[in-house]
Amino acid sequence: MSSKRYVRSTDGDWALCDGADRLVLDGAPWAGGKPTGTPLPSGELGVPVAPTKIVGIGKNYRAHAKEMQSEVPKEPLLFFKPPSSLLASGRRVVLPPESERVDYEGELGVVIGQRCRRISPDEAMDHVFGYVVVCDVTARDLQKSDGQWTRAKGFDTFCPVGAEVVTGVDPSALGIRVTVNGDLRQDGNTRDMVNDIPALISHISQAMTLEPGDLLATGTPNGVGPLADGDRVDVDVEQVGTLDFSVVTESR
Amino acid sequence: MSSKRYVRSTDGDWALCDGADRLVLDGAPWAGGKPTGTPLPSGELGVPVAPTKIVGIGKNYRAHAKEMQSEVPKEPLLFFKPPSSLLASGRRVVLPPESERVDYEGELGVVIGQRCRRISPDEAMDHVFGYVVVCDVTARDLQKSDGQWTRAKGFDTFCPVGAEVVTGVDPSALGIRVTVNGDLRQDGNTRDMVNDIPALISHISQAMTLEPGDLLATGTPNGVGPLADGDRVDVDVEQVGTLDFSVVTESR
Repeated sequence: MSSKRYVRSTDGDWALCDGADRLVLDGAPWAGGKPTGTPLPSGELGVPVAPTKIVGIGKNYRAHAKEMQSEVPKEPLLFFKPPSSLLASGRRVVLPPESERVDYEGELGVVIGQRCRRISPDEAMDHVFGYVVVCDVTARDLQKSDGQWTRAKGFDTFCPVGAEVVTGVDPSALGIRVTVNGDLRQDGNTRDMVNDIPALISHISQAMTLEPGDLLATGTPNGVGPLADGDRVDVDVEQVGTLDFSVVTESR
Repeated sequence: MSSKRYVRSTDGDWALCDGADRLVLDGAPWAGGKPTGTPLPSGELGVPVAPTKIVGIGKNYRAHAKEMQSEVPKEPLLFFKPPSSLLASGRRVVLPPESERVDYEGELGVVIGQRCRRISPDEAMDHVFGYVVVCDVTARDLQKSDGQWTRAKGFDTFCPVGAEVVTGVDPSALGIRVTVNGDLRQDGNTRDMVNDIPALISHISQAMTLEPGDLLATGTPNGVGPLADGDRVDVDVEQVGTLDFSVVTESR
């Protein structure tokens, strides 16, 4: 498989990475955007996805379910994060005063390439555009007290995403590492998913149409833990890339 | 307050209703779309909202919480419905084979007009664009078995919306009536909300930025019940309008 990398400017321009160059596209890469011949001006990058929905998966690694004192669900456990929670790499995750415990959860993100509904696992990978690094930031206390995970997973800045979408990668055995202030905290591998990516896509598509650009956060390995003001976090997914963010307490 | 009504064609054109005429706008009404002078061709109408997220409220009427053998939550209970669940009025809600019990829940919908974050209840109404009729269709069995309401509230067609967005309405005491095959099933009033609309908007905005066009489903009164193949459902919200849909079992 030939692998390509795409980024998006903070102004919303998509670009194909060609060595050190970034070639502006005339549309989203999954919509067939073609190079315009213009280079992307250097500068900060934005979020390289534009999802109509972000679907997360809970407890999709056995060792993480165990550290949460929880069973692995019988079927994939789905939740939504709102697009308003997206954050570009290099920015700051904001700890809200409503929570006393906000955790990092490093994950592989899947970007849908083609609309699909009720597809089988065998058909699923044909509908994937590529992969991103995601951190499913979660207010652990609100997750418990609210019951529904809407707020706990949904605060602004709670969905940081790496700067690049990468195509042509085999996602079945990729290392996921999270460091906080340089200390290794998560060191997992996508091969340990309870439900693999074809199974997840098929399952979600039984309920809802997946649209091009939609983002799936495929679950986190064990080693999750709290974030504190001033922390610097790096999430690395093998062959996909790196996401980094710092952490700040919201001032009121 | 002067009241205006807006519709959207299935092609995505917005229009202002002027008596029997529909005047095409050059943008979404909450984005300041102005009449172009062209009439909207007659024909089927689409969904008159384009939300980046749909936020629902659980158990926001005391009598409904009671009929669910449940307490009223201490804070508004939030969930998301995906944009892929939107359905235009006059169409068919599809009962999926994954559920044996799918309920209607007639509701007042609020359409956000201006971006907001961490606003007070006093500021909330300045950020409302208008109102729509919504039915928060819910797979009752999956709501229980999944724990998270993502699938139960999220199947395609599970968010039918009335054809018109209406501005300039006081939402604080509007009758909500649902009939199934002509039988009155729900007969509530927005004055019985546990958390009123300013409180809901303020609460949601503490967690997440609300964007223009975002849709809130403000909870259902008592009288919910199951849908069956062939049912015809009408949801009527006083001063806002009517939503109707039929019900069909998904064939596999």
